[in-house]
Amino acid sequence: MKRLSVAILALAGMAVALPAAAQFAKPEDAVKYRKAAFTVMAASFGRIGAMASGKAPFDAASAQYNAEIATMMSKLPYTAFGPGTDVGDTRAKPNVWTDGDKFKAAATMMQDEMAKLNVAAKSGNLDQIKAAFGPVGKACKACHDDFRKE
Amino acid sequence: MKRLSVAILALAGMAVALPAAAQFAKPEDAVKYRKAAFTVMAASFGRIGAMASGKAPFDAASAQYNAEIATMMSKLPYTAFGPGTDVGDTRAKPNVWTDGDKFKAAATMMQDEMAKLNVAAKSGNLDQIKAAFGPVGKACKACHDDFRKE
Repeated sequence: MKRLSVAILALAGMAVALPAAAQFAKPEDAVKYRKAAFTVMAASFGRIGAMASGKAPFDAASAQYNAEIATMMSKLPYTAFGPGTDVGDTRAKPNVWTDGDKFKAAATMMQDEMAKLNVAAKSGNLDQIKAAFGPVGKACKACHDDFRKE
Repeated sequence: MKRLSVAILALAGMAVALPAAAQFAKPEDAVKYRKAAFTVMAASFGRIGAMASGKAPFDAASAQYNAEIATMMSKLPYTAFGPGTDVGDTRAKPNVWTDGDKFKAAATMMQDEMAKLNVAAKSGNLDQIKAAFGPVGKACKACHDDFRKE
C-alpha cells in the first residue's frame, strides 16, 4: 500500500505541474471536473466521518478504502483552477485567482492532512482515524471560508 | 503497484456489496455522486485517449497515473444506482433498474477492460496502451447506448 501511495503522490505532483490549458478543452470542462473531484472526495471523506463520529459502525476496510479514494481525489481539483476558469456554474471566489499563493497553501494544507488521515486509516485504529479526521475537516472549512461563495 | 491494485479490487468488491441506502442520505446525492465519478473517470480516460490517438505526446507516467485514477473511478458509480435513485438530473434510462442483470454485466465489462488498460499503462508501452484503449471505449459506448438517454 505504502509504495503505491508514494507513487501516487509523486505522480500527482507531476500532474499539478501540467498547465490546466493542456488538460481541458473548455474552461467549463475544468469547472465540471474540479466540482466532480470534490464531490467524490467529500463522499468518501463523509463515510469516514460517519464512522469517526459513531453515526456508522466502524469498518476498518471501508475506512481504508475511502481514505485511499479521498487522498487520490485531494490531488485532482487544483489543476482545474487555471487562468480563465472563473466561469459558469462555480462557487469559487475571485481571490482564487488573485491570491493564488494563499489558495495553493490552503489546498496543500488539506492535501497534507488528508494524507495523514490515509496513514491513520491504514492503521485500522479508530482512535487514530478520529484524531486525524478533525484537522482535514478544519482545512476544508478554512479554504471554503476564504475561497468559496456561500 | 500490483499489490495495491489487488487490494483496491478486493475493497471495491466489498463496497459494491454495501446497500446504496447506507451510503447516500438522499437519492439526489447518489445521482450527483455517480455523475461525478463518471466525470473524473472520463477526464482521465480521455487523457489516455489523447495519447493513444497521437493528439497529445505520449507521457508514460501520465498515462499510468490517469489509468490508476480511471480504474479506481470505474468501481465507484454503481453503488449509486440503487433502488429509488431514478430521480432528478439523471440521464439513466429506466431499464437500469428493470434490467439490473444486464446493466451489471455492462458495468463489469467496462471495469474489466479498464483494469486491462491499467495493466497496459503500467507497462509504459504505447502500443499496449493503444490496444487496450479501444475495448474500454467500446464498453463505455455499449452501456451508454443501452442505458443512457441521449
